[in-house]
Amino acid sequence: MTPSPALATLETPVALLDLQQLERNIHHMQTAVGALGVRLRPHVKTAKCVPVAARQREAGGHGITVSTLKEADEFFAAGFDDILYAVGIVPNKLNHVLDLRRRGCGLKLIVDSHAAAQAVVDAGRAQDHRFDVLVEIDVDGQRAGVLPDAPELIDIGRLLHEAGALAGVMTHGGGSYAMRGHDALVAFAEQERSRCVQAADRLRAAGLPCPIVSVGSTPTALFARSAAGLTEIRAGVYVFNDLVMAGLGVCRNDDIALSVLTTVIGHQPAKGWVLVDAGWMALSRDRGTQGQPVDQGYGLVCAEDGRVMDDWTVSAANQEHGIVTRRDGAAPADLAQQFPVGSRLRVLPNHACATAAQFGQYHVLDSHGAVSIWPRFSGW
Amino acid sequence: MTPSPALATLETPVALLDLQQLERNIHHMQTAVGALGVRLRPHVKTAKCVPVAARQREAGGHGITVSTLKEADEFFAAGFDDILYAVGIVPNKLNHVLDLRRRGCGLKLIVDSHAAAQAVVDAGRAQDHRFDVLVEIDVDGQRAGVLPDAPELIDIGRLLHEAGALAGVMTHGGGSYAMRGHDALVAFAEQERSRCVQAADRLRAAGLPCPIVSVGSTPTALFARSAAGLTEIRAGVYVFNDLVMAGLGVCRNDDIALSVLTTVIGHQPAKGWVLVDAGWMALSRDRGTQGQPVDQGYGLVCAEDGRVMDDWTVSAANQEHGIVTRRDGAAPADLAQQFPVGSRLRVLPNHACATAAQFGQYHVLDSHGAVSIWPRFSGW
Repeated sequence: MTPSPALATLETPVALLDLQQLERNIHHMQTAVGALGVRLRPHVKTAKCVPVAARQREAGGHGITVSTLKEADEFFAAGFDDILYAVGIVPNKLNHVLDLRRRGCGLKLIVDSHAAAQAVVDAGRAQDHRFDVLVEIDVDGQRAGVLPDAPELIDIGRLLHEAGALAGVMTHGGGSYAMRGHDALVAFAEQERSRCVQAADRLRAAGLPCPIVSVGSTPTALFARSAAGLTEIRAGVYVFNDLVMAGLGVCRNDDIALSVLTTVIGHQPAKGWVLVDAGWMALSRDRGTQGQPVDQGYGLVCAEDGRVMDDWTVSAANQEHGIVTRRDGAAPADLAQQFPVGSRLRVLPNHACATAAQFGQYHVLDSHGAVSIWPRFSGW
Repeated sequence: MTPSPALATLETPVALLDLQQLERNIHHMQTAVGALGVRLRPHVKTAKCVPVAARQREAGGHGITVSTLKEADEFFAAGFDDILYAVGIVPNKLNHVLDLRRRGCGLKLIVDSHAAAQAVVDAGRAQDHRFDVLVEIDVDGQRAGVLPDAPELIDIGRLLHEAGALAGVMTHGGGSYAMRGHDALVAFAEQERSRCVQAADRLRAAGLPCPIVSVGSTPTALFARSAAGLTEIRAGVYVFNDLVMAGLGVCRNDDIALSVLTTVIGHQPAKGWVLVDAGWMALSRDRGTQGQPVDQGYGLVCAEDGRVMDDWTVSAANQEHGIVTRRDGAAPADLAQQFPVGSRLRVLPNHACATAAQFGQYHVLDSHGAVSIWPRFSGW
């Protein structure tokens, strides 16, 4: 691998996206979910970038998942109209939702309580509008959702159905991030599937419709052995991959498409420190590998050409300063020769969603070494 | 305190700025540094907001400090022309710096190595331009800088002086963030001052000019007992304050001007969890109080009117979900009544610089309960 000459002229830090790796990641997930016989609904919260989502759609993705109404706005404006907003809806967002839906956006909502469902139903009656609402199911005790065997599930389903708003059930098996090893991930994927399907079956047994049965996370999507009873799988971070996913065994370090290009600004030779111009503002404060067997600090260091330097991580970070050190704490005598002031490194992210969010654009490196700019957005 | 009716209509999460508290914080720091007889050069990296910096200037601030050239661009466009860029300069940024300086921006640079100084001198010669460069001094072993007694200091100073580019010395006593208690902070402020002045004295003894002697951090600025030998003090986070500063004893929780307004989206009653729509994307991943005596999780919870609820923190966070729990882990029976779906809370930030950076604007709440929008920017 030879560094692209285009990188030398960039003002650092920048979010560097390897286009070939991005496309491999998209293909890999689409193939895996396709083999299960269900649709893939990519979660676009990781990249928040229309050209990335367009590639996911071209590869066979069906609809998108969003984490904010800002994402719904931006992607609807770019031609995506089948959108699942996967955070429990609250009253202060319903006018915004209504505006999108009246303009033709097929925006689906989620609730996990009678109170939230009632608020949606009330707003729908007041505005003479039928929302599309999924009931969020708790399959792992990690976050939101009603338990698949909870009596409240039927109450919520009936309340929504009587308003013509019941669209199905969904869950996010976020507990997959705590699984270790192939067998645990396979078992967890089955837990996510079976508990969500159980909820769908209970609704149907109560005479309620449940057209959509939606589950997913990147680990469960890739380790699922069955999608029986599901209509779709959602996944997000796979599009870039990251060190947390690599630590779980979901990808390899070489599968990570996103890195932060940074420049060496100085050294503290006695301590073995290389100072770079990517601090936590560029890398994010995410320390997602801290609880994994291999703690990657604020990120794993690569040479400018992308070659992983396994011995080196960003071990500390201030706002605009990163401190690159050897894992073993050694201070090589040739530190300043090995990492000259002005030379460039790449840093692989712990958590791609968090690191990408620190940037307003991606610098996309293609297989010819050319760099183009893809915009991304942030906020709510 | 009554919640402002204006808050009820906002789509959450938003970055809420208490205007009166902001102005008190600006006045407090300006008074403290003024009493030491030196200039205050606010670091604008915390707010990245022209209306905030304008108030710091009106209060008596003299010039600004920036952490990125994007900040230099934005603030120069807004009429600030005395700017110190407080991150070691690297060659890929010098064309940008040159452009700003040729357009009239008095942008000062820093270096802490002969190699970096040489790069600036070479670029200056090639472009027939004299940069203004300060040598960064290491006063606490925390980050960058040459030691005040290092032989290299004189070499760097001479190299810069021969190119007409030596503007002085500067340091940032970031080690102050690890101090505990009044006496330790006072002593550390004196260490920061004395070591930076020592470096200035050495340059002068070698026949080199040192017109600027610049130090600072919010804790040292507020705990310094002397500014002898200094020409200016820099500080940034004081403008908002945060839980890390409160944990150090630098401010009280009530002095924090920035919070994240969030809405309750649901509950897990058996666990005592209140789910809110401020996750780490809104709060940031900064866990700066983790190492302090009181760990505030992802932030300390306040009622909608700003009243601190000392027993409640955001104890866990996903991208767009925060989990609010009691510190003691208890699950109150009236959880859903105490925190109804759709009701609002505020969350005080661990680290204001990190939390503010997650937003594109501030919602500024004035003493009459009215809300206005102040833009902020991000990126490089």
